[in-house]
Amino acid sequence: MSKATLSRVPIYLRYLKESLVEENSTISAPKIAKGVSLGEVQVRKDLSLVSGRGKPRTGYQRAQLIKDLENCLGASNLTNAVLVGAGKLGSALLEYGGFEEFGVRIVAGFDCNQEVINSSKNAILSVDVIQDFCSENDIKIGIITVGQGSAQAVCDKLVACGVKAIWNFAPCTLSVPQGVLLKQERLALSLAHLNSQIEK
Amino acid sequence: MSKATLSRVPIYLRYLKESLVEENSTISAPKIAKGVSLGEVQVRKDLSLVSGRGKPRTGYQRAQLIKDLENCLGASNLTNAVLVGAGKLGSALLEYGGFEEFGVRIVAGFDCNQEVINSSKNAILSVDVIQDFCSENDIKIGIITVGQGSAQAVCDKLVACGVKAIWNFAPCTLSVPQGVLLKQERLALSLAHLNSQIEK
Repeated sequence: MSKATLSRVPIYLRYLKESLVEENSTISAPKIAKGVSLGEVQVRKDLSLVSGRGKPRTGYQRAQLIKDLENCLGASNLTNAVLVGAGKLGSALLEYGGFEEFGVRIVAGFDCNQEVINSSKNAILSVDVIQDFCSENDIKIGIITVGQGSAQAVCDKLVACGVKAIWNFAPCTLSVPQGVLLKQERLALSLAHLNSQIEK
Repeated sequence: MSKATLSRVPIYLRYLKESLVEENSTISAPKIAKGVSLGEVQVRKDLSLVSGRGKPRTGYQRAQLIKDLENCLGASNLTNAVLVGAGKLGSALLEYGGFEEFGVRIVAGFDCNQEVINSSKNAILSVDVIQDFCSENDIKIGIITVGQGSAQAVCDKLVACGVKAIWNFAPCTLSVPQGVLLKQERLALSLAHLNSQIEK
């Protein structure tokens, strides 16, 4: 499934859940399209990937469609993640409540700074206990929000802890062994790209 | 220029600047390719977009190539940006020093919370003065790091201040008038996409 399709799944899901007050058990593609302000062709195409085709005249079974959309996002079967580096960006991600809707739960944050560990409002744990924590909590994703200088060491540690995917915010290239997914988040690049499109 | 090419420009630039200690005035494509661990074909293609072709046998004029790469990123002619919403994410972006390398300088942060304005280490200004600030400082980009509930109002304010582009981190869809660029940053979506690729 493309990232573009995936990006629309939460939109359908929110609409369907909000419209649940109307007690119909089915809903048509044109109605969904209107509700989410997307083209009908687009909606049919997206939903056929997630849930199969709607029935002529009646449309989609609403409950089943919601279930299929949730499964698609993994929201009914959350993947556990940990975050390392509880600075400003790390704390912002820890506090952000919107990831569960997309199938991921950040279950803990780690830092090596004792002051951060003690003073934080959120539960920040010492990296010394990360290995045990990961094996006890079936952690699949590691999020790196430390500085450039320690990112590779943190990455190696997370890999040793058995994570299957790394989401790296440090502005540097990491190497991971085969079989581990790496997503490099390049915020500066988004901004540069936006900047390059401005007519000057 | 594609985002992929743009993403490699800072890599070339860093390599060329670091290798400047060697006093040669020219540098060849194979040497650059080796230095940045990219394929030679890729390097030639990228650099021809930015700076024209290298000369047979001698390669590129190093100083000119650096200048062209810098121009490409706009690093020699920085675009001014402001940020609204000095929470954790906003503060993290304000403190991040890596945007200038990509041609953008965040010159000020704004918030409406008087406590944040007074207590912040960074200079956070009151949104009450944003209009004057933007016209005095030639602000082209507005970065939105407020919550979902006030994002559209902040967006409208920034547009009224004359920004040409909006970079929105709030997890909601904004509408902007024609002629204003909008880049929606969807961090949760990056994570969802990564999660969907993990074999379970």
